[in-house]
Amino acid sequence: MSDSLTHPDRLLPADPGVRRLARSLLGAVENLPILSPHGHVDARLLRENSPFPDPAALLVSPDHYVVRLLHASGVPLSNLLPSQDGSRVPGSRTVWREFCTAWPLFDGTASGHWLRDQFQFVFGLSQPPSAGIADALYDELSAKLQAESFRPRQLFKDFNIEVLATTDDPLDDLSHHNALAVDPTFHGRVLPTFRPDAYINIAHPGWAENVDRLTAATGEPDTSYRSYIHALEARRRYFIDHGAVSADHGVRTPATIKLEETEAAHLFETARAGTATSAERDAFEAHMLYQMGRMSVEDGLVMTVHPGSFRNHHHPTFEAHGADTGHDIPFAISYTEAIRPLLQDFGTAKDFHLVLFTLDETVFSRELAPLAGFYPAVYLGAPWWFLDAPDAMQRFRSAVTETAGFSRFSGFIDDTRAFCSIPARHEASRRVEASFLARMVAEHRVTENRAYEIMFDTVDTSPRRTFKL
Amino acid sequence: MSDSLTHPDRLLPADPGVRRLARSLLGAVENLPILSPHGHVDARLLRENSPFPDPAALLVSPDHYVVRLLHASGVPLSNLLPSQDGSRVPGSRTVWREFCTAWPLFDGTASGHWLRDQFQFVFGLSQPPSAGIADALYDELSAKLQAESFRPRQLFKDFNIEVLATTDDPLDDLSHHNALAVDPTFHGRVLPTFRPDAYINIAHPGWAENVDRLTAATGEPDTSYRSYIHALEARRRYFIDHGAVSADHGVRTPATIKLEETEAAHLFETARAGTATSAERDAFEAHMLYQMGRMSVEDGLVMTVHPGSFRNHHHPTFEAHGADTGHDIPFAISYTEAIRPLLQDFGTAKDFHLVLFTLDETVFSRELAPLAGFYPAVYLGAPWWFLDAPDAMQRFRSAVTETAGFSRFSGFIDDTRAFCSIPARHEASRRVEASFLARMVAEHRVTENRAYEIMFDTVDTSPRRTFKL
Amino acid sequence: MSDSLTHPDRLLPADPGVRRLARSLLGAVENLPILSPHGHVDARLLRENSPFPDPAALLVSPDHYVVRLLHASGVPLSNLLPSQDGSRVPGSRTVWREFCTAWPLFDGTASGHWLRDQFQFVFGLSQPPSAGIADALYDELSAKLQAESFRPRQLFKDFNIEVLATTDDPLDDLSHHNALAVDPTFHGRVLPTFRPDAYINIAHPGWAENVDRLTAATGEPDTSYRSYIHALEARRRYFIDHGAVSADHGVRTPATIKLEETEAAHLFETARAGTATSAERDAFEAHMLYQMGRMSVEDGLVMTVHPGSFRNHHHPTFEAHGADTGHDIPFAISYTEAIRPLLQDFGTAKDFHLVLFTLDETVFSRELAPLAGFYPAVYLGAPWWFLDAPDAMQRFRSAVTETAGFSRFSGFIDDTRAFCSIPARHEASRRVEASFLARMVAEHRVTENRAYEIMFDTVDTSPRRTFKL
Repeated sequence: MSDSLTHPDRLLPADPGVRRLARSLLGAVENLPILSPHGHVDARLLRENSPFPDPAALLVSPDHYVVRLLHASGVPLSNLLPSQDGSRVPGSRTVWREFCTAWPLFDGTASGHWLRDQFQFVFGLSQPPSAGIADALYDELSAKLQAESFRPRQLFKDFNIEVLATTDDPLDDLSHHNALAVDPTFHGRVLPTFRPDAYINIAHPGWAENVDRLTAATGEPDTSYRSYIHALEARRRYFIDHGAVSADHGVRTPATIKLEETEAAHLFETARAGTATSAERDAFEAHMLYQMGRMSVEDGLVMTVHPGSFRNHHHPTFEAHGADTGHDIPFAISYTEAIRPLLQDFGTAKDFHLVLFTLDETVFSRELAPLAGFYPAVYLGAPWWFLDAPDAMQRFRSAVTETAGFSRFSGFIDDTRAFCSIPARHEASRRVEASFLARMVAEHRVTENRAYEIMFDTVDTSPRRTFKL
Repeated sequence: MSDSLTHPDRLLPADPGVRRLARSLLGAVENLPILSPHGHVDARLLRENSPFPDPAALLVSPDHYVVRLLHASGVPLSNLLPSQDGSRVPGSRTVWREFCTAWPLFDGTASGHWLRDQFQFVFGLSQPPSAGIADALYDELSAKLQAESFRPRQLFKDFNIEVLATTDDPLDDLSHHNALAVDPTFHGRVLPTFRPDAYINIAHPGWAENVDRLTAATGEPDTSYRSYIHALEARRRYFIDHGAVSADHGVRTPATIKLEETEAAHLFETARAGTATSAERDAFEAHMLYQMGRMSVEDGLVMTVHPGSFRNHHHPTFEAHGADTGHDIPFAISYTEAIRPLLQDFGTAKDFHLVLFTLDETVFSRELAPLAGFYPAVYLGAPWWFLDAPDAMQRFRSAVTETAGFSRFSGFIDDTRAFCSIPARHEASRRVEASFLARMVAEHRVTENRAYEIMFDTVDTSPRRTFKL
Repeated sequence: MSDSLTHPDRLLPADPGVRRLARSLLGAVENLPILSPHGHVDARLLRENSPFPDPAALLVSPDHYVVRLLHASGVPLSNLLPSQDGSRVPGSRTVWREFCTAWPLFDGTASGHWLRDQFQFVFGLSQPPSAGIADALYDELSAKLQAESFRPRQLFKDFNIEVLATTDDPLDDLSHHNALAVDPTFHGRVLPTFRPDAYINIAHPGWAENVDRLTAATGEPDTSYRSYIHALEARRRYFIDHGAVSADHGVRTPATIKLEETEAAHLFETARAGTATSAERDAFEAHMLYQMGRMSVEDGLVMTVHPGSFRNHHHPTFEAHGADTGHDIPFAISYTEAIRPLLQDFGTAKDFHLVLFTLDETVFSRELAPLAGFYPAVYLGAPWWFLDAPDAMQRFRSAVTETAGFSRFSGFIDDTRAFCSIPARHEASRRVEASFLARMVAEHRVTENRAYEIMFDTVDTSPRRTFKL
């Protein structure tokens, strides 16, 4: 590898024979569209189709993968992010200079890989960032961002995205999604996703108010538990009517409990009164995760579960800059007992799709592959967040495939708010899949013919089937 | 790899130099007999030596590895398994068709690998199953199964099995083992294994009745705790007299406690009265695991411990089809503190062999290798169940060898009830061991001469020594 | 690999192209000095510069890695170690014979690798130990050990050690360190490390007495909590004045709590009275770990944390032979919630360096890389103890680098009391780093130019910066 940004064989295995095969498997899917059934791009971005403001606002500030490593190296967050109240905003050029100076930090990281791909294939650059060229690069990129060809919709088309799911508040009116759906000049599918965390987790600072708003918005007669449940069901229907295919749950743990309605209602009222203990909070969240499963069985929304992240680990940073600023830290989780109440009742329910994710790798071979290898409802969520990196994705494949095969995989999920990184992330996933399959073929564990079929299924069939696209 | 079933270099590493060496190491043990010191084949099978009924009854229904993945893909278990009460039994041909249709699901799985080996080397097939050839294949295999050469004893001989241990109820009269031992026409060793779970776990539905039967069978004067212990000791002696070399323990967790006899007797009586709490259940099970260790020290039975599986995770399936139907799901365990009371007292006891297994891979490097690397009693159980697959076995080797070397390994355990898969499983293990050793040699960490010695020890010396064969 | 002791390409990857690159990366750092910022060599050894007594006392008895595996194979510890009271001491020649006979046990282990390197490069041997040559080898090595060239200071120089940190009792007068520092004939840096475990863990048998000695030694007016804290601060200053750069904490878990001073004082008095519960013991230890962090922020000592080992697992062995005799067994830990109180307050404190270690590999990708990838204070401790082996170090690299890059690494830590193994351990680490980087280059994930820079940083810059050398 010279000092150019990317190499055609990046991420492929070193062994010449295996690499040849991996290259060929990769080539067989290179024209397939991107299916992105879970992510955090804002639908407004595509609806408005305005130019991206500047390189730092596009590539640095909103990407907590990038911000966090700069912070670890000693750059104060106030040089990278606006203050929570918006009163102080670092200059874009300052942010960009910090990033360019810190570029060597990203060697060997997933972020570095995605950024190099973007620089070369989205922005047509030929050399990596560095302190010396920071300003020139800023100017070059800024100019490009003004061009028609860098508008979100044109990029959406150039990226060959067929489906892009967003993640939305249950009370979002989905007007942006709607506008895109009826716009004859836009041909992609931009689907909302129902994400009710702030309405379910009673420890969320806005929970009580959210319940008020929720029941009011759906015309419920009161704010009772029953009305609350009806309101959630109503908003799910609204999302379905606007194209949603899944509901996503960012829970602390994957615990589920089936409570009697009276017990649940009692917990709900205790929470409304602000007197719930942390045990009651956990019980209510577990109950509601079960209820979300029950609703998915009834209304058909695919259920995705993303547990195990300790959010906002550094409180002073949260106070200063808000959430999603790079200090969510995973911890150990276990699905086996936690998810059992839900699976007892719905693990074989017709057309119920439950996609389980983890930030704790130990769960892959120990729990997820065995669960997905028995329950028709359970799909193996793709390696997520800190694990959506080349080596980690190889470990995932190795950990789950021998028990669950290839067919129980959800397909790749980019889970990103960094729009321009979407092709790079999917490309990296495809390269890892091709590398794993090439090794399977080289070790005579999968035939070459089947490897091509599996490669296609992994990239195309799996996400379509799992997410009912 | 063409579309043929197997390749001579299957499971060997892709690098040409390493592969050459692995092939040679594998060749050096190819004529060594199979030693199978832990498994679930029924001794009656060999005693009666009847033809296997049909391909589905041989290869599909009894193999929960196979059934589970078909079920996950949407095949109802009622199409694959008899109902628990035996009132409904799916037709063999139906089961077989489901399996053949679902064959691609097994790509990349351990089951798929074992099945391909069986199809080629046991049944002489030249192509994999598929929907189109399901009926023809069923007929072809059915015809073969009637031949003298496919009778269990002939296969036992052709498989080059020297020792096969079964797993047996403590009250089994071991008449099949006995008959085989005295039969001058049968030359293998078929050894019983003492498996007292249902007599020790007070949560087991039949526990109280089992205690009654146990004490009655051994002529104890009453059903007191002391008589219960005597009865277990007596049945262990009976097993030893009938050739048993080990006692196996399928516990929930590896907890051990040394209780005073009065305390244990009190717990026992509480359990007999049906009023034990779950904490008391756990304490009694931990106490009994300690007692089993104490008995092993005294009577010399090798003690094997298989913890960490949540049995019958999906209750509706258990109700419909019974246990061992593919929904036992592992969870996180820890040996370090749990097994300490036993090791305090018996970890250096003369001739005590304690083989520790895990379904939680995290235990390999963190606990098992350190324990087996200090305590003369502790042996590293082979990767078990979901982990007895090529990549998982490589991870095991990598995780334990640097701390515990090769000498603390128990040897491979097939743990299977699928008789015809035994050679394939041992062959896969040998291929993985050869591959690991070949890498060690290629990285100049083990000399080539020693690699051949270690290969022999791993396949032959280790199981003989660990299991006192 | 012939039967010679070592090969120039040992530990390098098998693929010829990757190996070539790894060899070149390794060559680029071969003349860099050894920086050993954490270990257990006694400063007296270098101060006195006496000949090592004999091969067994040098290479076997003090190395619990070696002793433990001999013990596991059946050699009684009384044949290898003195009794705790010193009344029985096995003969050196006996110990040596046991070791030579058991040599094949070490195949594939980290210990075996380090020993082979030592035999060849420190002692100039050309063949491995074996029963047949035990006595001859003992004589040959004994003779060498009398030579001037095998004195500790000459070896220190020949090993190219620039910095060697010891681990010391807070009341150590550091006279040996002092003598070395002012000795114009000795040119290395031998730095003390403040290790207060026995003064902080109230379950330590000597704790109460240690507090008496501590407060007396620093001239405190009484043995109150406040005096105790002052005394610890005073001894840290004493260590800093004598060259210490870090304080090390061998805690059971990484729990930290910030208690009010009155509450802490109350716990302290309860502990002094000998009536603390185990929950109070844990709370006090967690509080003191927080206090140690607070002191490090104030006085600048780098803080290293080594949790998760169950010390003296086999009590009979502890009774007979004392601590550090091979039966410390790791268990599962978690940093995310445990270390949070400390990081809340000091995670971004200026010049605070907190190096986190683990024996539980699951923590690498799940917690340590995310923590070190956000908090400027947190550095990734090198793979430690059972994990400082070639494959385990590769797993560490793979687990952390994609999230945290290379820049958050502490540098290699040998953590050894086996003086002659220091070069072998650092060499092994360099070989693993070169191998990992060579793969990154071969997979086009890091440029070749950057790989050389990263290689240098990893070996030289990282430990200097992390440990403020």
